[in-house]
This record gives sequence, C-alpha cells and structure tokens, in this order.
Amino acid sequence: MQLPSIDPPDRLLTGPGPSNPDPRVLEAMAKPMVGHLDPYFLEVMDRTMTMLRSLYRTNNHHTIPMSGTGTAGLEAIMLNLIEPGDHALIGVIGYFGQRLQEMAMRAGATVRVIEVPFGEVIQPDTMAAAIAEQPPSLVALVHAETSTGAEQPLADIARMAREAGALMVIDCVTSLGGIAVEIDVWGIDAAGSCSQKCIGAPPGLGPVTFGPRAMEKVRSRAAAPPTWYLDLNLLFQYWGEGESKARAFHHTAPVSSIYAFHEALRLIHEEGVEARWERHRRAHAQFVEGIAELGLSLFTPVEHRLPMLNVIEIPDGVDDAPVRAALLARGIEVAPGFGPLSGKTWRVGLMGTNATDERVGRLLEGLKEVLGR
Amino acid sequence: MQLPSIDPPDRLLTGPGPSNPDPRVLEAMAKPMVGHLDPYFLEVMDRTMTMLRSLYRTNNHHTIPMSGTGTAGLEAIMLNLIEPGDHALIGVIGYFGQRLQEMAMRAGATVRVIEVPFGEVIQPDTMAAAIAEQPPSLVALVHAETSTGAEQPLADIARMAREAGALMVIDCVTSLGGIAVEIDVWGIDAAGSCSQKCIGAPPGLGPVTFGPRAMEKVRSRAAAPPTWYLDLNLLFQYWGEGESKARAFHHTAPVSSIYAFHEALRLIHEEGVEARWERHRRAHAQFVEGIAELGLSLFTPVEHRLPMLNVIEIPDGVDDAPVRAALLARGIEVAPGFGPLSGKTWRVGLMGTNATDERVGRLLEGLKEVLGR
Repeated sequence: MQLPSIDPPDRLLTGPGPSNPDPRVLEAMAKPMVGHLDPYFLEVMDRTMTMLRSLYRTNNHHTIPMSGTGTAGLEAIMLNLIEPGDHALIGVIGYFGQRLQEMAMRAGATVRVIEVPFGEVIQPDTMAAAIAEQPPSLVALVHAETSTGAEQPLADIARMAREAGALMVIDCVTSLGGIAVEIDVWGIDAAGSCSQKCIGAPPGLGPVTFGPRAMEKVRSRAAAPPTWYLDLNLLFQYWGEGESKARAFHHTAPVSSIYAFHEALRLIHEEGVEARWERHRRAHAQFVEGIAELGLSLFTPVEHRLPMLNVIEIPDGVDDAPVRAALLARGIEVAPGFGPLSGKTWRVGLMGTNATDERVGRLLEGLKEVLGR
Repeated sequence: MQLPSIDPPDRLLTGPGPSNPDPRVLEAMAKPMVGHLDPYFLEVMDRTMTMLRSLYRTNNHHTIPMSGTGTAGLEAIMLNLIEPGDHALIGVIGYFGQRLQEMAMRAGATVRVIEVPFGEVIQPDTMAAAIAEQPPSLVALVHAETSTGAEQPLADIARMAREAGALMVIDCVTSLGGIAVEIDVWGIDAAGSCSQKCIGAPPGLGPVTFGPRAMEKVRSRAAAPPTWYLDLNLLFQYWGEGESKARAFHHTAPVSSIYAFHEALRLIHEEGVEARWERHRRAHAQFVEGIAELGLSLFTPVEHRLPMLNVIEIPDGVDDAPVRAALLARGIEVAPGFGPLSGKTWRVGLMGTNATDERVGRLLEGLKEVLGR
C-alpha cells in the first residue's frame, strides 16, 4: 500500500462547510503544543470563552467550544437538558431539524414535532398553538437550515417558549458568525454551532452556550446524563465555574484545535461581528445577481433566504453530478441537494473567508464555464 | 481585554500527554483544507484506517479515529456495546478503571467491580472467579493505568471472557504505540486509545477498533444507543462498510486533525511498531537509571511497570507543587499524582517523540537542578 504524505489539492470550499480557514488560523493551529492544564493554555481557554460570548452576544458564563464537532455540541445540549419522560417540542423545517428530533428522542424525551415542507419556515402562531396545547419542557429549532437555505425566525417563539416555562434551544450551526444570533436579546437558553462554517476554523469543535435557566436544569437533574464525555457538570470543573480559578481534569482538551478556534475568533473580533454579517449579506447579493445572469435561480423563497447557504435550482436538462464533478476538477466544491432536494438543487456556501467579491467572482466564473452559459 | 495571538511557550511535555508532536505532524495539520466528502479526503480516511489497523495489530474493518478525544472513543464503546440491563464486569486498578465503571453504569449496565489498590494489577484467577460466578456480557479493563503506571496483563483474561461469551473491552489510551497491544492475538473485541500520547498527534481523536463479535452486538441492539454522535451504525455509513465505497454524511469529520493523525501514523509505519516499543523500553531504562542517581525511585512495582508512564515517589521533605513549578519554569512539564497518590508522587510521561536519549537527558538534567541533587 502506498502511504503518501498529506498533500491536498487546492479547493475553493463553497459547499456547506468546512469553509477555507484564513492562513492565520492554520498557522495558529500548528503552534507548539502545551499541556491541557498548562497555565498558558488556561489563559487561552479564558480568552476563547470571552470571545465566544461576544460572538454569541451573551453574558452566559457557560460558553465553550465542546471537544467534538457541531453535532457533539447539539447532542450535549439534548443529553444534558432532557431527562427521560420530559416533553420536547421540535420544529422541523429540514434535515437538521429531523436530527434534533432524533437526538431528543434518544435523550428520552416524549417528542412532538411541528413540520413544514422543505423550503418553508414555521410561523410563530403555529408554535404558539403547539406550546399552548401541551406546555413542553424544551422547545428546539434550527436557526439556519443547511438542507433548505431557510432562516427560521426565532425571537417571538423564544419569548413564548420561555413564558410557558420551556427551555428554548437552537441549532445555529450555519448561522453563527454570518447573520445575527442574539442569544440574550432573543432569550435563548442553549445554542450550539460549529467551528468550520462562518467562524472559519477547521471542523472539530462545537461552540455552545448555556444560560442560567439551562444550567439550573443541568444541576437539578434526578440522574446524571447517559454521556460522561459531554456531561456539563463535569466539563465545567475543567473550563471553570464563575469566578473560581480551580480546574479539575476531565478529558484532554484538543489544544491545537482550540488554538485555531482562538485565532478565528480573533479575526472576527478584528473585523467586528456586525461588519461580518454585512459582508455575508453583500456576498450573497453579488452571488444572486451573478447566477441570475447565468439563468439560475434559488429554491428558497426570498423572504427567508440565508445569505451563507444558497440552494440553487438545477435547470431542466442539466445533470447534477457531472456539473459538480466539473467544478471540482476546477478546484471548486459545491454540494448536492439534501433528501427530497437531492438531484434537484445544488447547495452553495459563502461562508467566512469565502464571503468576498473575489471568491464569489471565482465561483461564478466556474459555474459559467461548466454550464457553458 | 487583551487578545494576543497564540504564542505558546516551549515545553518538553513529559506529563501524561499530550506529548510533543513531531514537526511533520504539525505541518501536516496545517495543510490546506478540503471537504469531508472530497475524493482526496476519502483516500486519506482509507489510508488512516489501514495504518491504524496495523498499529492495533488487527484485521478489524471497523477501526477509525472517533471525532472526539480518547474519552469519546471509550464512551462510544460503552454506549454502543451495552444495552440497559446488561451485566458488565469492570476491573479497576486506578482512576481510569473507575471511569470505565462510571461510563458502563451510565450506559445502563448492572456493573460489578473487581478492584485492587492503586499500584497493583488484577490476577487472571481473580477475574476468572468473577466471570464464573456470574457470566457478564462485557468485561472491561484498562491496559495501561495512567494514574498508577501499572500494566494490566490482558491475554488470559481476554481468553476467559470470550470463552464465557462476554465481549472483551480495553482502554489502551496510554499503551497504544508504546508497548505491545495485540488486538487479534489476545482476542480483544473492542479497544479505545487516544491520539496524543505514544501516537504523538495532537489531542482530539479517539482511535477505536471493533471486532466482528462487537459489531454483531452493535447491529443486534433492541434500541439505538442514547448517543447519535457516537452511534457506530451511523458512523460507518460515513467511514465505509466493508467493500462498499458508498459514503453517507453523518457529521463533518475533523479534517485537519485527521491530517495530523495520518502523518503520526506514517511516522510509526516508517519506524516500525516493534522498534517503537523498543525505543520506549530504552527510554524508560535510561530514566530509571537516571532517577536512581538522584536518589529517586518509582512507586509502581517493577513486575508491571509501564515504560511510558513513570510514577515517581516524592522523597520525604520535598514539596510537590514547588518542584513542578520550578520544572515548568525551565520548560519541563511533569504531572502531579492522581487521587490517593496526589502529593506523594509525580507522573512522568516518556511518550512518542519524548522517548529518546536526548529528551530523557534533558528531563533528568532539569530534575537534578530543581532538586539540587
């Protein structure tokens, strides 16, 4: 067997993530290793928490990158905030909502689902009626549905959920760093995102935030969750509780990945988060204009289109896979459609470093060549 | 708040891990990102599986780095191989055995524990009696106990466990890559290790292997495990089942971490795994000789001492923390004792790149200076 060294091809990563990390991020990741309890690393952890709080627009102390991908972060939320027999109300607007549903079921919840067809979003009134019918202990929704390109409005639903005594949980894997995610203003109790999309670090971390109501639930559980690895009560003995500087070993933190994440957060801090949202908006506008010139249009209704995840309708007479293969041969990654949209759409991510004039231009040029338009 | 860039101090990482990665490993990690379903990355995944099988001395197809630290890999074993009500027999020779016990309980098992004092190991006869008394469905042991520096003999126990119809599970977090771990020869059904000790990659991955009997249990479960993230039936739709080249999205793999891990495995392949065990043996012998000259001795009985994890008895009249702080000020990390050994011992790791004459010499020099001997 041949065992060549790592020598990856150059790619413009305009699929649903990972996006291309900034060179500074990759450089930080390769810095010399220190121990996971080294005083230097504890400082890095503290700064990472501070910057992540700022990105999440929250004062929640319990705001960390979990040592697993975005999926691990969402699973941590479900396994810590649900006790067997709890009632969970899950809004499903696409594949990633179905995944929240599956995780909630595995955590032992009795799950009710409000579902709309791919492309649509759930109206606050619909959720209000479902909450009123039987008050749940947890309401969960996907903010930016990567399978459909739709942005689910959250503020009204979060208010109603909390008024009914439920914890409000969101999956903001695709939205965080690309559009407004207002944890404290909206009243979100727990949120999970990822490192590799609009934040622009490599995949491998699951940034999460837990508010006081969520931590109250964590601390008052009748029994520990089935997961030891993602048990928040244990994890925060390592990441630190409030003012306490005491740190207890739990697991060995992924030091290099946190270096990279720290640098990605520094880049966001330098740019300013609102300027970053605006940059994602502009890149999207440029892309929409560009594909219109190629005779292409987006699947997702304009009222709730995400800027960072564009779902293109594949025109009649054009085959899905050969186009993606031809783009990849030019070093450009776009993704196929998901579930019912498979074969009918492409998913194009404009995230992090790729939400710029130059990158969008390169992508449009590639599409133009490959489609021969 | 100051937000400086990542600029870590130089450290000789002779604690229990992470060890210092080879520069080639850090370089590989910083290579350009590709997508987690990119044809190039699928090749990297296949080669990673092949090299990991070779390191584990197994033909098990189901041999991958889990997307979490070593702890996540062990949790994956417990949550997938235990169904609620199963009987698990756990041997505990230190802290990490207690952790297996805790994970097995959280997975829903009825747990029996065979425990010996810190420093000792469990005799095969003792396990044989416990297995005969009530045949368990799973037997688990820590191979190299990081809290005590002891190597637990496994071959006889594994044979007896399998003869009794139980799955044999091991934690080889500290041993893999540093001493013999013979999955197929010993008849181990599932094993979990980490990336950051004797393998020499950064922390963040949990290399696991599952044999046919373990996978039979995974496939025949009455219900899915509580974890979705670590569900093996779903994971291998992404990593590939047998000859099938089909890959389905599960979660976004930590691409850069796998680059690094791939390079660490290449280094092991180049050195040869048996030569690597020998190198760890030599480094240990050099270290034992060196500390004897300083009037220090090891806590762990000589019959079952690990080469890569040395537990030093702190001499009378010497304070634990100031010595470690003085070593750290010289750029050398050693770890405190664990649990009942806290304050009475130091734990010194000689793992991966640090199991060499030069590094052991530097460590001994530091100890000599700090202890003034």
